[in-house]
Amino acid sequence: KRVRFVPYMCDRTKNTNIRLSLPAVCVVWEIAMIILFGVFIRYNWESDAHWAESKHNLSDIENDFYYRYPSFQDVHVMIFVGFGFLMTFLKRYSFGGVGFNFLIAAFGIQWALLMQGWFGSLDYSDGKIKVGVENFINADFCVAGCLIAYGALLGKVSPVQLLVLTLFGVTLYAVEEHIIIKIIHARDAGGSMVIHTFGGYYGLAISWMLYRPNLDQSSRLQGSKYHSDVFAMIGTLFLWMFWPSFNSAIAGHGDGQHRAFINTYLSLAATVLTTFALSSLFQKHGKLDMVHIQNSTLAGGVAVGTAAEFMLTPYGSLIVGFCCGVLSTLGYVFITPFLEKHMKIQDTCGIHNLHAMPGFLGGVVGAITAAAASDTVYSHEGLVNTFDFKDEFKDMVPTVQGGHQAGALCVALIFGIGGGILVGAVLRLPIWGDPADDNCFDDEAYWEVPDDEENIIPNIQYNNHMQNKDVETIKPHRRKRCSRCF
Amino acid sequence: KRVRFVPYMCDRTKNTNIRLSLPAVCVVWEIAMIILFGVFIRYNWESDAHWAESKHNLSDIENDFYYRYPSFQDVHVMIFVGFGFLMTFLKRYSFGGVGFNFLIAAFGIQWALLMQGWFGSLDYSDGKIKVGVENFINADFCVAGCLIAYGALLGKVSPVQLLVLTLFGVTLYAVEEHIIIKIIHARDAGGSMVIHTFGGYYGLAISWMLYRPNLDQSSRLQGSKYHSDVFAMIGTLFLWMFWPSFNSAIAGHGDGQHRAFINTYLSLAATVLTTFALSSLFQKHGKLDMVHIQNSTLAGGVAVGTAAEFMLTPYGSLIVGFCCGVLSTLGYVFITPFLEKHMKIQDTCGIHNLHAMPGFLGGVVGAITAAAASDTVYSHEGLVNTFDFKDEFKDMVPTVQGGHQAGALCVALIFGIGGGILVGAVLRLPIWGDPADDNCFDDEAYWEVPDDEENIIPNIQYNNHMQNKDVETIKPHRRKRCSRCF
Amino acid sequence: KRVRFVPYMCDRTKNTNIRLSLPAVCVVWEIAMIILFGVFIRYNWESDAHWAESKHNLSDIENDFYYRYPSFQDVHVMIFVGFGFLMTFLKRYSFGGVGFNFLIAAFGIQWALLMQGWFGSLDYSDGKIKVGVENFINADFCVAGCLIAYGALLGKVSPVQLLVLTLFGVTLYAVEEHIIIKIIHARDAGGSMVIHTFGGYYGLAISWMLYRPNLDQSSRLQGSKYHSDVFAMIGTLFLWMFWPSFNSAIAGHGDGQHRAFINTYLSLAATVLTTFALSSLFQKHGKLDMVHIQNSTLAGGVAVGTAAEFMLTPYGSLIVGFCCGVLSTLGYVFITPFLEKHMKIQDTCGIHNLHAMPGFLGGVVGAITAAAASDTVYSHEGLVNTFDFKDEFKDMVPTVQGGHQAGALCVALIFGIGGGILVGAVLRLPIWGDPADDNCFDDEAYWEVPDDEENIIPNIQYNNHMQNKDVETIKPHRRKRCSRCF
Repeated sequence: KRVRFVPYMCDRTKNTNIRLSLPAVCVVWEIAMIILFGVFIRYNWESDAHWAESKHNLSDIENDFYYRYPSFQDVHVMIFVGFGFLMTFLKRYSFGGVGFNFLIAAFGIQWALLMQGWFGSLDYSDGKIKVGVENFINADFCVAGCLIAYGALLGKVSPVQLLVLTLFGVTLYAVEEHIIIKIIHARDAGGSMVIHTFGGYYGLAISWMLYRPNLDQSSRLQGSKYHSDVFAMIGTLFLWMFWPSFNSAIAGHGDGQHRAFINTYLSLAATVLTTFALSSLFQKHGKLDMVHIQNSTLAGGVAVGTAAEFMLTPYGSLIVGFCCGVLSTLGYVFITPFLEKHMKIQDTCGIHNLHAMPGFLGGVVGAITAAAASDTVYSHEGLVNTFDFKDEFKDMVPTVQGGHQAGALCVALIFGIGGGILVGAVLRLPIWGDPADDNCFDDEAYWEVPDDEENIIPNIQYNNHMQNKDVETIKPHRRKRCSRCF
Repeated sequence: KRVRFVPYMCDRTKNTNIRLSLPAVCVVWEIAMIILFGVFIRYNWESDAHWAESKHNLSDIENDFYYRYPSFQDVHVMIFVGFGFLMTFLKRYSFGGVGFNFLIAAFGIQWALLMQGWFGSLDYSDGKIKVGVENFINADFCVAGCLIAYGALLGKVSPVQLLVLTLFGVTLYAVEEHIIIKIIHARDAGGSMVIHTFGGYYGLAISWMLYRPNLDQSSRLQGSKYHSDVFAMIGTLFLWMFWPSFNSAIAGHGDGQHRAFINTYLSLAATVLTTFALSSLFQKHGKLDMVHIQNSTLAGGVAVGTAAEFMLTPYGSLIVGFCCGVLSTLGYVFITPFLEKHMKIQDTCGIHNLHAMPGFLGGVVGAITAAAASDTVYSHEGLVNTFDFKDEFKDMVPTVQGGHQAGALCVALIFGIGGGILVGAVLRLPIWGDPADDNCFDDEAYWEVPDDEENIIPNIQYNNHMQNKDVETIKPHRRKRCSRCF
Repeated sequence: KRVRFVPYMCDRTKNTNIRLSLPAVCVVWEIAMIILFGVFIRYNWESDAHWAESKHNLSDIENDFYYRYPSFQDVHVMIFVGFGFLMTFLKRYSFGGVGFNFLIAAFGIQWALLMQGWFGSLDYSDGKIKVGVENFINADFCVAGCLIAYGALLGKVSPVQLLVLTLFGVTLYAVEEHIIIKIIHARDAGGSMVIHTFGGYYGLAISWMLYRPNLDQSSRLQGSKYHSDVFAMIGTLFLWMFWPSFNSAIAGHGDGQHRAFINTYLSLAATVLTTFALSSLFQKHGKLDMVHIQNSTLAGGVAVGTAAEFMLTPYGSLIVGFCCGVLSTLGYVFITPFLEKHMKIQDTCGIHNLHAMPGFLGGVVGAITAAAASDTVYSHEGLVNTFDFKDEFKDMVPTVQGGHQAGALCVALIFGIGGGILVGAVLRLPIWGDPADDNCFDDEAYWEVPDDEENIIPNIQYNNHMQNKDVETIKPHRRKRCSRCF
């Protein structure tokens, strides 16, 4: 610890000045987006003005916009307010939490429209990607994977690193999604595998590559404070409330969306109860821990993702939620400290407990539920609809589908861990402007932070009976934060 | 007052350690939910995979999901963010406000699905409750009654007590709703009687049973602070904005929902103006009081609930809103202090002014409007639709319907007050872990609360020219909060 | 500066006591609303109970309520939470920001229903205004213009002045909208001209009329603090997320709404990247400025408003967003200080950069895009639908339409600047209770503000080893704020 007071020991090679790199990356990439959109992206059938002629007998209110857009908006709120505010819980990193989330999500959705378009929506007749409301939901989903990864790295990386993480993350996601959904023909309505398992392990692998042995130098900033915890609850609640929309947003129209909403709703409700139970049980005086309430209450939504549109049954959903609340809270109590101490994985938000583990569990639940599906439970047509046993997969049977689901889970894991290690290696280059160990979790590195004492100090000066030295005594942490060495 | 400094006078029997009781209750009840859901709850026609076959000529987009789900999500936001953040206004009870609201709502909706299902959605052919989106809206409504009751008790009860309150509250609600809607055949789209009158008086009766004569011992924590008031405005605004969805969520499709939205919107708009007017008028220097703005602005939505789908006319809605803003603000100025002083009812959030009184008024408005309905105003078919004059009630006439509405209001009152007294008696048992009088309104009792001074103190210690005694002087309230006696 | 310490120099004529004026204005105007609504406003075809008979072959789910209401709710959230919380950024004016926004929006929507109704929805057969969900979206739009104007005046005016500003603003808006949409036949789905150009210049002109040369006397309160900046991000994000709903809310059903959503979404995404780039580039150490992130990221939504339902193409939307992020951030860096110093326009929220300039740009983009429209790009029927080339305008051609769009932009400018000067003159009357220069940006003027030190002070008093003088030293700013002169 004494080391901190010896200036020449400080890691002077770290420079958080991103005045050139951040603007350069943002502007160059946005110009690239404009060019690529110009070459590739066009309105689809339902959003093009030609629809007035080409819709034929359809009425205007049969446009899919009306049956996807409310779900889209709920998902959109989860991405920007949900994830954003969930990450405001740190006492001096709320700007970075909500602000960088905003930046990388806004960039990621553009790149996702292209990447997912090339794989999924390319019209081979004219080589254009035709986009409509469903593409935008998928873009939000794609970027969710990267935001999950950000959760592990919160406070320890620069915005330029985050943009790089997002560029590669979206690319990996689009490939992985294509393999899982199109090639393996797995079903994953809520993305337990595609989004959460991938995103979770992607972030953890990067965090492992960027391990900081001396991170305790900024330990004074690693906690929350009273109001930052309340801000984080905004994120938690919007994620919790809209998760049924997330899991049902791209499920099949009709009973599929309806059922996905019900399963998710029930799983989440059960998770809340077991999270509160476990949180209280593992504290000395039975006091609740805000970290658990903010995060583990959401694990039920993750774990029910793959099976959301299946006939999981209402009580099946409750059981999944029950187990997830227990598992996720135990994760915060035991696994996160273990990962940090023995595996060199520093996981700021505990995404291992909220996304990686529940996502994996969700994949397993999905595989089992799919393998157990039957004509009796689904009806014949219901089975075909739900599992899309059509065209080249018209001879598929549920048990084989279960195997495919399990295979898909492995693909998600491999892409997450493998991709994370590769991208982590790139992010270790000393050119990205990441903060020094004692500068982590501090908005001062990348933001103009208002001085909260301003409204006291001038008045003290009016009162005019305090000496300069005393004024400094009152706000010593400001000097601390402004200089990085002593 | 001197009493507080004499240790042996303290109420040492109070023990807020809920490390066993809270986990036990949560886990046992959740397991009970799983078993009961397993026995009783199934997907309904529109959310079951058989729909693919049984829907016949219907198209997928005619699934009721698309015409109820946006309203459901708005109601869901009101329950979790609206009620939750409205209760963050206390300076040191924001965790308890939003957190316990989350807990009891998540539990209540599960129990409500069962209770309301047994009364309303039981399929007698197989003994199963078939649930779809409308059941989930009704479950949210049901739990709203308990959250209203929590408003009166905010800061004075333990989470275990709240779970008990919710268990009984949901049970009473389901019975009361069945009597009012099915047996008496009253209409109550927005729940002025069923939700607000019942919930309001239920909470007030419990508060009366749990009267604390020495509550002024925690008076230092009873107010708000600047930022907690801003947090509460999040709750207020989401309640205010989505109230039109609340009142229209289960109204009849078509003109019924459309009209319920319009009436509620207008009533709420008028309430804002009279609330600001009265709030300013009753302060010494004409300054506005945040308590009124946060609460009384919502009273118009409560009072228009029963009549929301009736032909109340736009100006009729304005008149209801106008009166409610006046009444509710006067309630905060005069009635709440009176209730506390002379009636032994301590009402933390002032639910008497926001729910009980406006709910009662809403029942009266509903009865008058129903009695005044006519074929001219509604058209014959419109009258039948709006008041459901079908089957066994096909000979009902508006004037008689008005009488039924009035009877329903009495039922709501009786269930609220009677149920509250019974449940209050149960909650007085000394086993629930409720806080001592000088520990009320303090999150320290049930939450691990971050130390907001952390980021100052370590630096002060670095600076190393402050003596221990001085450090303690700076944060004396921490010692205060940690020990309950002097 | 010395002047501030000389009591008799203080502007003692300023009296912020609004105990009579605010209640009087609110109550009288609300009564006027009730009377006017009674005379004029009725339910429209789709919200009247007669619909049960008059709908004939329509099914209940074809009621327009289901295809406008989700958009309406998104817009509603923008008006109350979006604008409201965006204005909480000042360190001691969060109550005024979100509270007065609430008041004037609630009043404005009532008056807007009447004003817009007289111009647009009057049924000449019975002289009544028939309202349905679309009227309520338009009322929210109308009031948005006034809330924009409030942004320029934030912290410097009394609530009574704001009500007057809203009364005149809504009136001017309704006339301007009628001229632009009906007489000139310009298209403006997202209101770049009608809402943002008008509202922006209206506010700037009023601010110019109310110029305060000594505003630096309250400069200590003009900044933000850490948590007030996080509150403002709630506003930013809800505006950003729901802007696609804003621009598509009253666009043509079907492809029109679908396309308006896509264009807005993409434009906003691009704006975020250039805003972050420019914000970093213009700060000394490359640090990001919250003012830019909170505001300039939204400029893309404003600028794409007019052209939102046109075939702007996805990359065209990105280009508009790209330019707007640059322009708006440069505005905060260079133009706002210039306007204040040389043009005597004090613009608290920087509405010139967020609304006025991007709105003007949006009008220009709309004119160019309209003039360039062709049968090839739109299809014949698509062109007729999008530009409403029907009835008396059935012979209109795109190039002429472009001219009309340009003319409409001039009308918006003239109404904004002209109306602002007139209303500003009215607001200079010394009867409205506006604050003195050293009282601006301070909630103490109009609100009962909780004392944030309360939970420290009583404990310090218990500890009983601090002298009175010391207690006062700790909270000197309270004394400061309570007295207006020294």
